[in-house]
This record gives sequence, structure tokens and C-alpha cells, in this order.
Amino acid sequence: MTEVGRTRRAVVLLSGGMDSTVSLAEARAAGFDAHALSFDYGQRHRAELDAAARVAKALGAARHVIVRLDLRAFGGSALTADIAVPKDRIGHEASATEIPVTYVPARNTIFLSVALGYAETVGASDLFIGVNAIDYSGYPDCRPEFIEAFEHMANLGTKMGAEGTRVRIHTPLARLSKREIVERGVALGVDFGLTLTCYDPITRDGHATPCGHCDACILRAQGFAAAGVADPTPSRRIDIPRP
Amino acid sequence: MTEVGRTRRAVVLLSGGMDSTVSLAEARAAGFDAHALSFDYGQRHRAELDAAARVAKALGAARHVIVRLDLRAFGGSALTADIAVPKDRIGHEASATEIPVTYVPARNTIFLSVALGYAETVGASDLFIGVNAIDYSGYPDCRPEFIEAFEHMANLGTKMGAEGTRVRIHTPLARLSKREIVERGVALGVDFGLTLTCYDPITRDGHATPCGHCDACILRAQGFAAAGVADPTPSRRIDIPRP
Repeated sequence: MTEVGRTRRAVVLLSGGMDSTVSLAEARAAGFDAHALSFDYGQRHRAELDAAARVAKALGAARHVIVRLDLRAFGGSALTADIAVPKDRIGHEASATEIPVTYVPARNTIFLSVALGYAETVGASDLFIGVNAIDYSGYPDCRPEFIEAFEHMANLGTKMGAEGTRVRIHTPLARLSKREIVERGVALGVDFGLTLTCYDPITRDGHATPCGHCDACILRAQGFAAAGVADPTPSRRIDIPRP
Repeated sequence: MTEVGRTRRAVVLLSGGMDSTVSLAEARAAGFDAHALSFDYGQRHRAELDAAARVAKALGAARHVIVRLDLRAFGGSALTADIAVPKDRIGHEASATEIPVTYVPARNTIFLSVALGYAETVGASDLFIGVNAIDYSGYPDCRPEFIEAFEHMANLGTKMGAEGTRVRIHTPLARLSKREIVERGVALGVDFGLTLTCYDPITRDGHATPCGHCDACILRAQGFAAAGVADPTPSRRIDIPRP
């Protein structure tokens, strides 16, 4: 919660998925004037960007900026290059420790860096990113020690940091399970029907349907099932493995 | 110098200016297979990218990648937005400590982050950036403590770092004056006539001429004059203030 009568600005990384949407809702609930930032980074699922625009509007973001950054120039991930998105992987033994091919090299570093530049431009020193505990094992750039190191670097490498304004990276979902993220979103009045959480959606007539088999779909389905909430986003049938 | 018979890969940030060119020459001299990386970030002086391409080829870069990243989406700097580039500022008292309007918010953070992603994709753990001492006072993201913090963060936020490969950020010009950069370039056989170091070049018939009055032009001219070397890049007449 913020001081009464004072609105601060924050830049919120927004993919249009479940996690970043709840992260934006947390920023708004804390009283921030939210500048939402999405990336058109050559991802194969552009339906994400449509979801991000819907969510930014519904949650009252002051502005929604989409930055084009063509990471396909160097490839290297199933989300940006021509590599198959793995299906039905969650629940199998290897998935707990290995770094998945959907890892985009240095993605959160890149996204946070651009968010930092955007923040400095609009006079914001608070950044929000929806990383959470369930991602720690797979993605190095979701770990709390990475976020702390980024924050430290951001304070040294910016004009605002050099001039004494403290840059803060907020990770409101850091300690939450997918179940708790769903519960928190419901408590904050998030319409999850606007969101899209899928690495490989099926797009037909401009409408995207989650595949139901990639890691993101299965983790989302597990979260809704555990929270006892029906997911309002229509999906292909998902066979939910036990968490 | 590298081990005999073993070539390592490095990603080298290359703007096409004097400093990044000498940084690339240092990477090559150290035995690295150099992957040069430039940005089309909506800068007003696209002639930079032509210079970068010439330099990458002349210095034997294994590859030269230009990543498009439209920072004009949020503006905020004389190099990306419609703000006048300051002229004849060097030599005046204020220039020693103030952060110039040519500062692009979080630019080196963003460039290094993308370089990190590119490095991970091509199996490189060494990054080169041509920051140097003369820039420290004006640009927070050129300071050694920033570079160290970035390196620490990079080791935590990447797959290669998590798997035990040490990411290194090389700043071969860190302790050099502009004079020493010129001397080092000459020693390494750099053809400075290929480079372009100007924030506001005059382009006519596809050929760019340095303006001779921005900070970059004046610092370059001071460096060549101090080294007693004639600058092979034709420029408008520069009245060099005493360093």
C-alpha cells in the first residue's frame, strides 16, 4: 500500500500470461501508476501480445508499450527459433532439474534491462516482474539471487541510481506456488479469461487456444485445480499430472 | 594471448566508433573468434551501422549481427529522441561532472544483456565492451563498479553461469585515455579511417561526415592530437579545446 495522496510510477513487465497479470494487479493494488511493458521479440506466439494489451487495459495501466526486439537474429530457444516446444514434460522426472529448451538465453536480464531504461525515461524507480518459485529450478534468471544482483547492478548503472534514487525490483509472486498465484489473482479481481499462458497456442480465425500440453499449460491447469477455481480461458482438454 | 591451438569465442559490442573498434582489435589480438554485435536502436545516426559493418569485416569478425531494438518507443535521450545534440560542450566546466543528454537510459545494461543472450547462443562466455576512463564521470554505466556488478549478475542469470562456466566482461580500454586508445589502435593496425565517432554526422549522398562539434568528435580529435597521429576520417574543421 502506498502513502495516501501520492502516486508513484512503476514499470511492469507484462507478457499477457497468468503470472505477469497478477504481478500487474499487485502493482496497481500497491497504488502504483503502472506503465506496462511487453516485447515483440520474435516469439512464435504473438497471441501473447494481444492478451497483454487486453490485460493492460482491464487493469488500468497508465500506458502499455510494446518494444520490438528481434531475438531471432541469433535464435537459440524453442520460443524464438525453429525448435519444437516440448509437450507433456511436467510430471516426468527430468523436468525438476534440467533447464528447458524454452529457456530464452538471458531473457529476463534483457527484459529487465529494457524495463530499467523505460523506467528511467518515465521517472519510475520501481520495476515489477512476475517470476515465481516454481520457475526457480528450471530458469536461472528467475532465482531471487539473480534478481538481487540485477537490482544492485541497476543502481550502479543508471543516472537515477547515481543520483541517489533507489531502484527496486519487485517480485510479488516470488514465494507463491501456482495455486497461490491463482488465489491472489482472484482476491485482486483479476479476470483470468483475458490472459494467455501457453508456449504453443493454436491460432484460428485470430483466436488463440492454449495447446494444453506444454509446461506452461500444465502448470497453469495444476494451479487452477489446486485452488479449486475453474479456468475461464477455454483450452484443449488437459490431463493434469499430480503436482 | 590465448592458449596455442585453441580458439575461444567472444561477443564484441561494436558501434563502429573509435573505442569499440579498438576493443574488437583487442579481442582479435587475444585470439578470440569474434562475434560482433551492433544495435539498430532508432539512433539518429544510422551511418554508425555502416561503419560497424566495415570495421567487422576489416578486423576479421567471424560474424556481425545487427539487432533491431526500437528504443524510440520510450524516447528520453538526444541520441534516440528529438532533442538537440549539445555542441562545443567539452572544455566547459559543467561537462566534467554532469550526465549529458546523450546518455541513453540504461543503454550499456541493455546492450550487454543482449550480448549476453547472443553469447550464450553461440557458446561464448567472453564479452567485450569499449568503455573507458574518460567516460566515467558522465555515464554511470561506464564505471568499473557497474561492469563488475553486471558480470556478477550475468553469472547468476544464465544457463552457462548456472552450469559453472564463468562469464567475463572484458573492458580492454577501461584505464586508457583517448590518446592511449589511438596509440593502441595504431599498434594493433586498426584503420581508423573506417570508423565513425560522432553523435550528429552530416550525411550527404550516402556519405557521413562527422559534425566536429559534439562531445564525441572533440574527444576523438583531442585523442588524435595528443597521440600526434593524423585522423584519417575526413571531418569538418575541429577547434580542439585544451584537454
